[in-house]
Amino acid sequence: MAGSPRRAAGRRLPLSVLCLLLQGATAILFAVFVRYNDETDAALWHGGNHSSADNEFYFRYPSFQDVHAMVFVGFGFLMAFLQRYGFSSVGFTFLLAAFALQWSTLIQGFLHSFHGNQIHVGVESMINADFCAGTVLISFGAVLGKTGPVQLLLMALLEVALFGINEFVLLSLLGVKDAGGSMTIHTFGAYFGLVLSRVLYRPQLEKSAHRRGSVYHSDLFAMIGTIFLWIFWPSFNSAPTTLGDGQHRTVLNTYYSLTASTLSTFALSSLVGDNGRLDMVHVQNAVLAGGVVVGTSSEMMLTPFGALAAGFLAGTVSTLGYKFFTPILESKFKVQDTCGIHNLHGMPGILGALLGVLVAGLATHEAYGDGLHSVFPLIAEGQRSATSQAVYQLFGLFVTLTFASVGGGLGGLLLKLPCLDAPPDSQCYEDQIYWEGGRTLAHS
Amino acid sequence: MAGSPRRAAGRRLPLSVLCLLLQGATAILFAVFVRYNDETDAALWHGGNHSSADNEFYFRYPSFQDVHAMVFVGFGFLMAFLQRYGFSSVGFTFLLAAFALQWSTLIQGFLHSFHGNQIHVGVESMINADFCAGTVLISFGAVLGKTGPVQLLLMALLEVALFGINEFVLLSLLGVKDAGGSMTIHTFGAYFGLVLSRVLYRPQLEKSAHRRGSVYHSDLFAMIGTIFLWIFWPSFNSAPTTLGDGQHRTVLNTYYSLTASTLSTFALSSLVGDNGRLDMVHVQNAVLAGGVVVGTSSEMMLTPFGALAAGFLAGTVSTLGYKFFTPILESKFKVQDTCGIHNLHGMPGILGALLGVLVAGLATHEAYGDGLHSVFPLIAEGQRSATSQAVYQLFGLFVTLTFASVGGGLGGLLLKLPCLDAPPDSQCYEDQIYWEGGRTLAHS
Amino acid sequence: MAGSPRRAAGRRLPLSVLCLLLQGATAILFAVFVRYNDETDAALWHGGNHSSADNEFYFRYPSFQDVHAMVFVGFGFLMAFLQRYGFSSVGFTFLLAAFALQWSTLIQGFLHSFHGNQIHVGVESMINADFCAGTVLISFGAVLGKTGPVQLLLMALLEVALFGINEFVLLSLLGVKDAGGSMTIHTFGAYFGLVLSRVLYRPQLEKSAHRRGSVYHSDLFAMIGTIFLWIFWPSFNSAPTTLGDGQHRTVLNTYYSLTASTLSTFALSSLVGDNGRLDMVHVQNAVLAGGVVVGTSSEMMLTPFGALAAGFLAGTVSTLGYKFFTPILESKFKVQDTCGIHNLHGMPGILGALLGVLVAGLATHEAYGDGLHSVFPLIAEGQRSATSQAVYQLFGLFVTLTFASVGGGLGGLLLKLPCLDAPPDSQCYEDQIYWEGGRTLAHS
Repeated sequence: MAGSPRRAAGRRLPLSVLCLLLQGATAILFAVFVRYNDETDAALWHGGNHSSADNEFYFRYPSFQDVHAMVFVGFGFLMAFLQRYGFSSVGFTFLLAAFALQWSTLIQGFLHSFHGNQIHVGVESMINADFCAGTVLISFGAVLGKTGPVQLLLMALLEVALFGINEFVLLSLLGVKDAGGSMTIHTFGAYFGLVLSRVLYRPQLEKSAHRRGSVYHSDLFAMIGTIFLWIFWPSFNSAPTTLGDGQHRTVLNTYYSLTASTLSTFALSSLVGDNGRLDMVHVQNAVLAGGVVVGTSSEMMLTPFGALAAGFLAGTVSTLGYKFFTPILESKFKVQDTCGIHNLHGMPGILGALLGVLVAGLATHEAYGDGLHSVFPLIAEGQRSATSQAVYQLFGLFVTLTFASVGGGLGGLLLKLPCLDAPPDSQCYEDQIYWEGGRTLAHS
Repeated sequence: MAGSPRRAAGRRLPLSVLCLLLQGATAILFAVFVRYNDETDAALWHGGNHSSADNEFYFRYPSFQDVHAMVFVGFGFLMAFLQRYGFSSVGFTFLLAAFALQWSTLIQGFLHSFHGNQIHVGVESMINADFCAGTVLISFGAVLGKTGPVQLLLMALLEVALFGINEFVLLSLLGVKDAGGSMTIHTFGAYFGLVLSRVLYRPQLEKSAHRRGSVYHSDLFAMIGTIFLWIFWPSFNSAPTTLGDGQHRTVLNTYYSLTASTLSTFALSSLVGDNGRLDMVHVQNAVLAGGVVVGTSSEMMLTPFGALAAGFLAGTVSTLGYKFFTPILESKFKVQDTCGIHNLHGMPGILGALLGVLVAGLATHEAYGDGLHSVFPLIAEGQRSATSQAVYQLFGLFVTLTFASVGGGLGGLLLKLPCLDAPPDSQCYEDQIYWEGGRTLAHS
Repeated sequence: MAGSPRRAAGRRLPLSVLCLLLQGATAILFAVFVRYNDETDAALWHGGNHSSADNEFYFRYPSFQDVHAMVFVGFGFLMAFLQRYGFSSVGFTFLLAAFALQWSTLIQGFLHSFHGNQIHVGVESMINADFCAGTVLISFGAVLGKTGPVQLLLMALLEVALFGINEFVLLSLLGVKDAGGSMTIHTFGAYFGLVLSRVLYRPQLEKSAHRRGSVYHSDLFAMIGTIFLWIFWPSFNSAPTTLGDGQHRTVLNTYYSLTASTLSTFALSSLVGDNGRLDMVHVQNAVLAGGVVVGTSSEMMLTPFGALAAGFLAGTVSTLGYKFFTPILESKFKVQDTCGIHNLHGMPGILGALLGVLVAGLATHEAYGDGLHSVFPLIAEGQRSATSQAVYQLFGLFVTLTFASVGGGLGGLLLKLPCLDAPPDSQCYEDQIYWEGGRTLAHS
């Protein structure tokens, strides 16, 4: 080992103290507020007149498990592409997501399912908590390698709260539809992370440039993440939709969209590549843009062709973004986006929101029949026209961008506090400062 | 990097152009023909008198997801055993399968669910499309490392069409049972790939022999593929069977068969190994033969003992095939089979078809009771005797071998077209000619 | 390659012979005893008056698949952390588990579902067999790297039988509740393995010390195992519980417990680490202790706060165990515990049993309502008080510790038989003596 790097102990907030504080706080709040809901409480469930088969569990748990795999396997390994940051990518994903699951159960509970001073939990709150954790991990992608675990936990503390509020404004106040979260998850997570990364801009980051790339096997580990995200994305978009045709249609649309973004990613990657060669960065990321872009509209009557077209467009934009826009983002806009979340979540998220505007605006009683009640209840009840729903959808996008930008700015200021664990410019993208085991790291 | 390899640009068909052409064509066909079916269309589903819980989605989607994981995680990583071909193994798996999913949705739709000039899609069409993609990936295993992505897409274009026709002949015209695809998937995919590889025979392949093996970690990546295929194979065979006891029994039989092929693989590998040592190639592949061999019969009343016996036999044949037959296949028959698909899919597929002949021939009203209608409707309706069903099953095997061989021959001729991207003999099994990122490749 | 290591052929029991003997024996027993149950047999199922949707398959199979992934992906890769023992970790996991699935189907069948001289099998027997296989793999973790496959198969032969008997005594004779197996799986597997490892104590093991650690990428492979165990643990604990609220509540409790053990693992790892740094060994293992500790109580009315508290405690104990107790275990107690199963399964298992005592003792009609029948049938029927159930739970723990210790001792004596394949002290943690492919191993 090339000499154990010294860390100025100073008056830093130690990771252990922060973990214990956060866990203590959420545990107390759980004790006071969190209770089993009607479907998980023994007395309440058996007090009702149900068959076991009616329990929400059987309709949502398989989808939940797929989402859970995406959050931990998918995001964790996708970020393990860095040659010397695999422990941190996978490990901090664990830490951040575990905390976010607890914290968002509380925040979302207060906002969405607070009855008689109690938060009622079940499989739907698990799905929503995982969605929020995924959002935090999207933002993590922008600052990957340049932030310590204490900083990241503070980021999660803030972001989970803002995520909950933004989602509440969109879904509950504005009546916006966004099942798969093109706005609430992808757009929010991306621009929160990008603005935060802007505030934390490091002009001397080239000191760590030699560690910024991948090695052969780290690229293969990253592909584990990509593939798990890709195969389970249909479950992600459909996990919270209405049961029956709603989940079924959402799955189908997402599936088609992903095949198209895969084909367009290969087409564009080869087109812009040296001698027609492909780039693993594109394949690891842009193939997934098809899942992001139909996040809002996949529960709607998008049509299979619409799903293909949307996926194709998203894969194209995303691949071109990696090739041409990421360098500009750093050089002109001083946003250092380690994983390129602007290309995978940012632009496809906005496209997805706009697609939602379009498809909502085209909704007719004829196309949805009695299903209009499930997809657009406000239109079915005559409270809104389709056009008006479309306007609300568009307004939801602006609200999201505003919350994300302001939140990311605040987050950046918070993470600049001097008592935190930001790595020096010369030690970015480096596991060794956070992880023991010099021998194994020296082998890499 | 050891000098970026030059590729004669010539008048090659670029990958980007082919991807765009294929995507454009399938998108137009989707726009014209593909529509949501009764279970995914909002108006049609809500027009019916259904409970959400009746939606086919809840009975098939968990199995679909397992199959989906097998296709992308399983096949992708199983082929990543090559030391310098991991990007291509995983990446081209993505590309091929994504295209095959779209294209086979169309082909199978025209043949199986074409009503009023429309193809109706839902979770069953997703399962069938994934099955077809898996078949293409089996054939890919034979030519792995010796074909470029343009060649592979053309192979998929042809193979998906022939797969659909062969399946239509077997299932719809001949009334053959083959839920898990011992014939339609494994036998077809294997012999299509082997004949194609024969046509593409490279006498000078020893120029790339040094890249043909694995390294320590590439073998572990391959084991990721093996394990995901192994654990989810029960879902593969049961995904399209009749609901209720049919899916349940298929899962159970496949599960037992796989345990037996695992034990026989270890027994035989150790028996033929130097000093009793085991071979990772056997463990990566032959343990899976138990899934292939019950592809036809696992929905039948095979009995748990029958499943064990079949799996044991398949593991044995497959391991011995890797040890003794693969070298002969290359030296005598000039078939270069990179992954040994003849041992994993070819011989076990034929055995599975024959086992189906046997078990179908033994079907009685006593053993199946009223369940005979689900498994052998033509016998239950008195249109066929069990013996006659067995003869049809056997005929189905010959039809499959014929379609596969002729198709593989045609495919080989197609892939020999001079404007394609076949690598030179000295550059086989090498990522560097298709992928950017010299630095990461040079590290390997 | 550094010279193929010679193995004294002697009068060793070859692996191939043992595999064939074991497979032959279980196949005969399957032929004589094992039959499809009412839900998998075509005639029996269709003879009943069922809807397909009522088949147990749809309520248990998704959970089974998650458990199956944990056994093969989870345990297999978790043990692949050793730098030169990845083939054996993943390969022997396959071999051991495949045999254990067959053998425990028989043992558990004789004890739990033997009707009219027949063992009836279906998805529940698959779940139970996988649980037993998981138990064997826990014990494998203690002796990892120091035992050959012949030894391991003999260990499984004994352990599966004792597991079945212990489980029968607890669940059927004593009426103990232990759905997720804090006692029957984790405590039993851990102490069986630890006592066995004590009997096989190697005073000269430092000869292989240089191979005992990990390398960078082997740690990432191990994280694949960790993550799959972590995400699917809710399915593990809930797979065999009563349907409806029972499965739902179990999942929710396990999910919360795991988030808390993750936070406490990071807190404690950083607290005891050099300069606040984290240790991958802790993150790979102790984060999972939250799943173990609620194995008994997660189906009970533990409350979400109770789940957090339990998980937090388990993660703390487990991390401290890795740091401080494992070295003592080896130096003072002469127990060489390769994977630290005492910290992951032993102590958290006992804690989980004690938590079960507590929560059972607090059970009231008020808290469970009519659901008391599902969770504590003997209390609901008035045969026992809650306190008496608590005493039985405690007694179950002592029974388990007794069976495990005596069994582990016997196992150790069995594995010391001279005709077996124990590696020499200087060749422990080394794939090369069991696996062909010197080239790939030399590269490592």
